[in-house]
Amino acid sequence: MSTNILILSAGTRNKVVQYFKREMAGRVIATDCSNLGPAVYDADKAYVVPRIDDPGYLDEIISICKKENISGVFSLIDPELSLIARHADKFTDIGVTPIVSSYELCETSLDKFKMFDMLSKLGIPTPKCYPSIDIFEASREAGEVGFPVFVKPQKGSASININEVRSKEMLTALFHDYEGLMIQEYMDGQEYGADVYIDMISGKCTSIFLKKKIKMRAGETDKSVSTRSENLFKQLATFVETVGYRGMIDVDLFYNEEQDTWYLSEVNPRFGGGYPHAYECGVNFPKFIMNNLQGKENPVSIGDYRDGIFMMKYNELKVMPQENLAK
Amino acid sequence: MSTNILILSAGTRNKVVQYFKREMAGRVIATDCSNLGPAVYDADKAYVVPRIDDPGYLDEIISICKKENISGVFSLIDPELSLIARHADKFTDIGVTPIVSSYELCETSLDKFKMFDMLSKLGIPTPKCYPSIDIFEASREAGEVGFPVFVKPQKGSASININEVRSKEMLTALFHDYEGLMIQEYMDGQEYGADVYIDMISGKCTSIFLKKKIKMRAGETDKSVSTRSENLFKQLATFVETVGYRGMIDVDLFYNEEQDTWYLSEVNPRFGGGYPHAYECGVNFPKFIMNNLQGKENPVSIGDYRDGIFMMKYNELKVMPQENLAK
Repeated sequence: MSTNILILSAGTRNKVVQYFKREMAGRVIATDCSNLGPAVYDADKAYVVPRIDDPGYLDEIISICKKENISGVFSLIDPELSLIARHADKFTDIGVTPIVSSYELCETSLDKFKMFDMLSKLGIPTPKCYPSIDIFEASREAGEVGFPVFVKPQKGSASININEVRSKEMLTALFHDYEGLMIQEYMDGQEYGADVYIDMISGKCTSIFLKKKIKMRAGETDKSVSTRSENLFKQLATFVETVGYRGMIDVDLFYNEEQDTWYLSEVNPRFGGGYPHAYECGVNFPKFIMNNLQGKENPVSIGDYRDGIFMMKYNELKVMPQENLAK
Repeated sequence: MSTNILILSAGTRNKVVQYFKREMAGRVIATDCSNLGPAVYDADKAYVVPRIDDPGYLDEIISICKKENISGVFSLIDPELSLIARHADKFTDIGVTPIVSSYELCETSLDKFKMFDMLSKLGIPTPKCYPSIDIFEASREAGEVGFPVFVKPQKGSASININEVRSKEMLTALFHDYEGLMIQEYMDGQEYGADVYIDMISGKCTSIFLKKKIKMRAGETDKSVSTRSENLFKQLATFVETVGYRGMIDVDLFYNEEQDTWYLSEVNPRFGGGYPHAYECGVNFPKFIMNNLQGKENPVSIGDYRDGIFMMKYNELKVMPQENLAK
C-alpha cells in the first residue's frame, strides 16, 4: 500500500517538499492559503485552501485527506501546530496520523513565557524572561540583568524586527508601539540549532543533528556548520523524552564556553528552517516519518553524520504565468 | 577571442553567476571575501580575496583581471561600486571595462539625501527627506508630514531593521541608539521595481523590466509580478539618460493611483536582488553586457516581455565539507 503524505501551509519550504518527494513510497500533496506559495508546485498535487482561521478550514483538510488517501499529515507553520494537535482525533478517526506533539506541549512551546516556566521547573538552563518593563527594571536595579536584551513577541514569530535592544529609550518605545512583547536576557555565547526526531511509536529520541550557526538573516540561519557534543546529545534526549515531544522538532541553543553550559532558548515542534542542512548530511527525517507511518520503529542514530559540513543558503525562484498558478 | 567576466563580491547571488555562465562566450570568475559566499562555487573559478577596505584589495583584483584575461568587471555590493568607479582608469588601462556608472553618480545614488536633492532639482517626484528630528518636527508642526515615516541610514543598506516608524517615542529611541539616520516620508501607494539597462556604448536606455512588488522580506522582494507602463518607461528612460547611468541599475518606485504619479525612491547602480525575475522573463542583461564588451551596441527593447508572470523566491542551499571550501 502506498504511503501518501499531506504537507500543510507549505509556503516557501520547497526543500522539505522536494525531500519528501524523493523519499516517500507514495504521493506528496501540499497545501497553502496562497497560490503564490512556491513549495506547493514541487508537490505531486497542490491545493489552495482557506486560511487556518477560516471556520471551514479543518473540514477542507479532512476532505483532502480522504480524497488523496493520506497516511500522515503535518504543518510547517507555528499557529497551525496547536490546531492539528487539538483535533488529532479527527485525523486518527479516518486513519491519518497527525505528525505533531500534544496540544499542551505545542501551546507551551510556542509561548515563550510558558516555556521559560517549564524549563525552569525542569532545571534546564534557559535565558531569563521578563513579561514587563517594570519587572525587568526591578531586576536590573538589583544588578541581576543589564542591557543589551532581546525583545520578542511572547507568542508567535518575530513580526517586529528589532532583536538586540541596547537602551531604556528603545525598550520603552517598543512597548509603547507594540502589544504582547516580552524581554529576554541577552545570551553571551555561540548560537546552535538542533534538529531532533522523536520516534512516534517508541517515544524515544532517535536522531539529533547539531549545527553551529555562523550567520543569521531575518531570523533564519543563513550559514551553519555541522558539529557534535555527546554531552548535549544526552541532555537533549532526556529532555525531549521526559517532556514527551513527538516527530520532528527544532531546538535553539546557546553554548556558554566559560560555564561549559548549554542554554535551551526555544523549541519549535515542527521542521525548522535549517532542516535542509541536516538532510543534506544524511539525517533523513522523511524516511523516519515513513517508517513510523508504516508501523516500524526507528533505531537510535543520534549523531550519525559528519562534522565540519558547511551549509550556505541562497535564493532560488519559481517563475510562472498567471494561468499556470494553482486554483 | 573569448569574453571573460569577473564578478566581485558575489556573496549569495548565485542566480546572477549562473546566468552569466549560461550566456557568456567565455569564462565566469567570481570573488568574495568569505569562502562561505555560496555564489563563488557556481563560477568557473572562485577567488577568496581581502575585504574591500583592505589596502591591498584593488591590486589583488587587478592582478586577477590580468591572470584570467578579463574583459569586464562588476560588483554586486553597494560599497564597492564607488571604489570600482573611482579607479576605472586602472581597469581600462589593462583593457578591462568596469561595468558601473560614474563615481559621482554612484556616490549620489547611494546617499539618500544627495539623491533626494538631485531628484528634486530635476523635478522628479520622490519621497520627502529629513536629515534630523528637529527638521522633521518643524515640518510636522506645519502640517506637511505625519506618522508613520520610514527611518533609514542615510548611506548604505538597512542595517537597522525597523522600517515603518509610527511614534515620536520610537523615532527618538532610534536616533538615540544609531548614528547617521534620516527620516523619509511614508509613501502611500503600491511599490514597484524596475531593472534598467543603459547601453555602455550609446548611453541610451535600451531595456526596462517593471515588476509590481507583492511581498517583501528582510528588505528584499520575495514575490512580484511583471507589468508595464508606457508612461513610466518614457519618464525612466529620460531620467537615466539625462543623469548618465551606465550598465544595469535597479530602481525602486511607488505609484500613487489617486495622483496618477510615479515616485522614484531609490536607485541602486548595480544588479538588484530581484533581477532574476527579469532574466526568467527573457530580459537578458548578461547578453547586453557581452554585446557591449564585444563593441556592439544593443538595440532598444524596452518592455520586451510578458505581463502577468509571477516570481516567488525560496531557499536553495550549498552543502560542502570544510576541505572543499575555496582557499
